[in-house]
Amino acid sequence: MTDSQQMTVDSSVHYTNIQDSPFNVAIIGSGNWGTVVAKIIAENTRENPLLFEETTKMWVYEEEFEGEKLSEIINRDHINKKYLPGIKLPENLIAVPDLLEAVQDANIIIFNVPHQHLESIMAQLKGKINPKTRAISCLKGLRVTADSIELLSDLIQDSLGIHCGVLAGANLAQEVAEQRFSETTIAYPLPDDYVPGDVDPTVLYTLFHRPYFHVHVIEDIAGISVAGALKNIIAISVGFVEGLEWGDNAKAAIMRRGLLEMIKFGRKFFPDCKVSSFTEESAGVADLFTTCTGGRNFKLAKTMAQTGKSAHEVEKELLNGQSAQGLITAKEIHTVIKNRGFEEEFPLFETTYQILFHGVKIGILPYMLENKWSITKPNYSS
Amino acid sequence: MTDSQQMTVDSSVHYTNIQDSPFNVAIIGSGNWGTVVAKIIAENTRENPLLFEETTKMWVYEEEFEGEKLSEIINRDHINKKYLPGIKLPENLIAVPDLLEAVQDANIIIFNVPHQHLESIMAQLKGKINPKTRAISCLKGLRVTADSIELLSDLIQDSLGIHCGVLAGANLAQEVAEQRFSETTIAYPLPDDYVPGDVDPTVLYTLFHRPYFHVHVIEDIAGISVAGALKNIIAISVGFVEGLEWGDNAKAAIMRRGLLEMIKFGRKFFPDCKVSSFTEESAGVADLFTTCTGGRNFKLAKTMAQTGKSAHEVEKELLNGQSAQGLITAKEIHTVIKNRGFEEEFPLFETTYQILFHGVKIGILPYMLENKWSITKPNYSS
Repeated sequence: MTDSQQMTVDSSVHYTNIQDSPFNVAIIGSGNWGTVVAKIIAENTRENPLLFEETTKMWVYEEEFEGEKLSEIINRDHINKKYLPGIKLPENLIAVPDLLEAVQDANIIIFNVPHQHLESIMAQLKGKINPKTRAISCLKGLRVTADSIELLSDLIQDSLGIHCGVLAGANLAQEVAEQRFSETTIAYPLPDDYVPGDVDPTVLYTLFHRPYFHVHVIEDIAGISVAGALKNIIAISVGFVEGLEWGDNAKAAIMRRGLLEMIKFGRKFFPDCKVSSFTEESAGVADLFTTCTGGRNFKLAKTMAQTGKSAHEVEKELLNGQSAQGLITAKEIHTVIKNRGFEEEFPLFETTYQILFHGVKIGILPYMLENKWSITKPNYSS
Repeated sequence: MTDSQQMTVDSSVHYTNIQDSPFNVAIIGSGNWGTVVAKIIAENTRENPLLFEETTKMWVYEEEFEGEKLSEIINRDHINKKYLPGIKLPENLIAVPDLLEAVQDANIIIFNVPHQHLESIMAQLKGKINPKTRAISCLKGLRVTADSIELLSDLIQDSLGIHCGVLAGANLAQEVAEQRFSETTIAYPLPDDYVPGDVDPTVLYTLFHRPYFHVHVIEDIAGISVAGALKNIIAISVGFVEGLEWGDNAKAAIMRRGLLEMIKFGRKFFPDCKVSSFTEESAGVADLFTTCTGGRNFKLAKTMAQTGKSAHEVEKELLNGQSAQGLITAKEIHTVIKNRGFEEEFPLFETTYQILFHGVKIGILPYMLENKWSITKPNYSS
């Protein structure tokens, strides 16, 4: 464990490595979580003029809301009425509908857009970002294909040629928006071309930490990305158990087994990732806890267990055509595990996959967790 | 992490180290949890005749229930009507009202009595137990005085001169009684005088593991004892946050910080204890989860937060004169921490103590968790 597990940086003290001019910070994305993060950042850029330029730009995908342009509403009323109604934003946060204009002078770019829009945004930015710019991705997780597992932050890093960290944690957006106490984890290893004065853990701590939003900076991007993806499978397993009313012991057992399989998966596919990122970070065990007590994946599975309906049916009825990320992840991770012949080592992930997609009964879970997988391995064909 | 984190022992296979005669097992205690554990054991002694004597004795503190002797009810109806109504017990489980008779031929003794009765039972057994007898304590936790912290299992070990392990986990008794899926942890380092054929992890696994009650055997008694004691303080902190409706992020944050302080405390006072006992065991993170979602300590704190009443008042009104273990532990641990000057390193435990006993406002918690303790250290005098 890290001995001093919470950085304590007092923003009033002198920074030895302070750069000549303050950092300019831009946020790409103004959905629900995007706007909450932008609010936090603008609060901090305003309070730390030695370190940051006060004016903080937030790229807004322009759309109409109640007959007005969303960016104009935000800049006039300082409220994102469409995606974060009722929450006042700092006046130094400026909505900018033009993507390139938003990032033009940025030294630090925060990415916070829906997963499915990331590639198109990368295409628009490609070749137009100074390689010394640093990035933080609030998208976490993995991009899994049959052949490879890639960190989402690597996608940004490789597309734009800029160093990119990750922010993740037990961060239900509305609670953070209302300034209720929360914690988060930022993973940011120093870049190879780091020089004093550059973005470092202290700068990032100062940019994100609030009295109500506590930040811990670590280096392990892979660890928190794996946790961010796999937690959704575990939330499904816990949802099953909740739907069958097996009780708190069983829920705790599933979370524990899920945590262990997460760690095992992380260590197998990203050998440098650290066990403590899973067991001691907000982006690990704490986010697992919040994800397993509510949310879309949990609810889908709970309803499956209660009604006996298939994942597909419940998804259609319950989620209004939206998809539960955990379903996609369960399938992707199954493929990866199966291709490598690792099924026996991940009985929770594999059984969850089978319940979701092959009609296997939930009641088999405890039995499968006894590691008798090899005896009972079914003949499924995908 | 342990790579094979679930032992898989098939009870039908041949034991190389099997002893000449099967182990005789006795259970001391027949309260709610005591009876549930006795049920599990008797199920397993019946199914594993090569390893255990089928007849399993359970010492019952004799009392009257509906005009009959409790031991007679249990032996006739195979139900402990007073402490575990509605649950059928195996017929090979025999209630014995005489303590010495119950343990007379035992090779393995399971202790499962209320904390406050332990000393009197030790006094009755002292000098009467074969030193080769092995014990498992289902009492977990610590005995804290101003000068020392002692493991409860050491108390048994030292009083009777027998080697004693510990069983603990996310084990709400009623759920286990109803055979709903649960897990547990047994900590049992091999004794110094171990010889092949003696009680070992395989024997204990076979004695306790059921399809609905999964067992993991480790060596770290100190780790799970510390977790078993300190979880009750954390449940109080989480109860505060629940009472103020701070939300799931905050609850997850408090549990995470609690887990870290638990580990730090364990490592300071029992340097051999293992981080993984806290982060990966049912007796660690999983039991923390169940304890923080309900139970006496959680409810007491939640009510304090909702009503503004003192711990003492709420205890009187809510618990019918019973005491919340977490209150006692919070005070004991505070004394230990303060005596060593460690307050700054345990802001969650210390702040929880202050809220409980010195009228400090709950709202200060996030601030204290920023590790600004040294600046704001109050002048309290106990």
